[in-house]
Amino acid sequence: MSQGRESAGRPTAAKPPMREALVAAALRLFDERGFEQTTVDDIVALAGVGRRSFFRYFPSKESVVFPDHDGCLAEMTAFLADPAGAAEDPVERAGAAARLVLRMYAAEPVFSVRRYRLTREVPALRTHELSVVWRYERALADYLRTRYAQRADGRLRADVVAAAVVAAHNNALRSWLRSGADHDPEASVREALAYVVATWGDRAPAAPGVDGAAEDVVVLVARRGTPMWRVVDGIQTALSAT
Amino acid sequence: MSQGRESAGRPTAAKPPMREALVAAALRLFDERGFEQTTVDDIVALAGVGRRSFFRYFPSKESVVFPDHDGCLAEMTAFLADPAGAAEDPVERAGAAARLVLRMYAAEPVFSVRRYRLTREVPALRTHELSVVWRYERALADYLRTRYAQRADGRLRADVVAAAVVAAHNNALRSWLRSGADHDPEASVREALAYVVATWGDRAPAAPGVDGAAEDVVVLVARRGTPMWRVVDGIQTALSAT
Repeated sequence: MSQGRESAGRPTAAKPPMREALVAAALRLFDERGFEQTTVDDIVALAGVGRRSFFRYFPSKESVVFPDHDGCLAEMTAFLADPAGAAEDPVERAGAAARLVLRMYAAEPVFSVRRYRLTREVPALRTHELSVVWRYERALADYLRTRYAQRADGRLRADVVAAAVVAAHNNALRSWLRSGADHDPEASVREALAYVVATWGDRAPAAPGVDGAAEDVVVLVARRGTPMWRVVDGIQTALSAT
Repeated sequence: MSQGRESAGRPTAAKPPMREALVAAALRLFDERGFEQTTVDDIVALAGVGRRSFFRYFPSKESVVFPDHDGCLAEMTAFLADPAGAAEDPVERAGAAARLVLRMYAAEPVFSVRRYRLTREVPALRTHELSVVWRYERALADYLRTRYAQRADGRLRADVVAAAVVAAHNNALRSWLRSGADHDPEASVREALAYVVATWGDRAPAAPGVDGAAEDVVVLVARRGTPMWRVVDGIQTALSAT
């Protein structure tokens, strides 16, 4: 992804006006009457379009609240398939892919906060969101499985890291949405993702006893203030072990 | 949880026969006609009970395939609230809680495999399962947030670890289900969860640069064979920094 594209954010000008009108009408009715009490007929009547137009854009009433996820998933998949990423740390690359979702939310903060509040109140939307999140997580896990294909623990590691990336991203994204989207969320999401990179990235210290790690490196954890002779002692013991 | 309870597995004798009959009838029809083509009326007709009996046990057609998750979630919540766990490593405790779900699957391997195959084929069941998994993950995250209440990164760490525990558990559980449940899954699930404990447990090495960790400890990662002078050099640089 080029720098220019990144700083410009997600383009919104290309969205068809009818689609936008349907989203606006749906959200207004969901707010006024509640999600369950609103029908597709109500939405098309308010938007001034036919029922078939609705279903041309949206497969269901739930999906009208999540209009951009299909496009974002396609963008994420293309980003992960780009050979340019092969030299990057796999976890950093997965985190950068997750930030495409953030950028979609951040491009329309008012709409995102409204959707977030609605999603928390309506179980059907909550369930729909879970399936959306699951598709992103699968895309990340599939990517990481490829990157970890040579590791004995590759599939497990890929699943765990993908889940951790999604959890960290969503933790920061939801804090931002709860706050009313009153600041730029990019820094806090990056920080949350850095937490996962620090743990699972290629430059992170390997955990002891984990497949393959114990043979290559020594990990020493010492409290600050530990006398140097104790530190050296610990290292020598570790190096001579096994 | 006592050892006796653990080895005995989940008791199944207490399940009402009518409920069992409804589950059996539903699964048979889902296999024969497909999930979407089967109605609740079809299920109650085959089971020889009334429609109201169905809804006494199950809120929806989807939930008939996942009959034990409510009970298992209650068991998990009670397990996590038990003060006896306060002395245990938080991640190990969360992993032990996740294994309650495994044990529910393992108690009925044939049914579990059948359900797994059905769930992969029917999007509505897949979505239902996601909401079931999400409830477990929230229970684990809530528990970990309490355990990490004193940490600056407590909420983020709780969310990430809960997601990692669920991902590791499900990775091993699904391998077992894909294999046709031909062996005892306990060992492989324990191994997958140990992977998360090794990374995030209280005895795991802290990652560098992670909030709260950098102030207290120095983490040194050295490849085996690194000359000692380089190691000491690295430690002295780290200790004198900040």
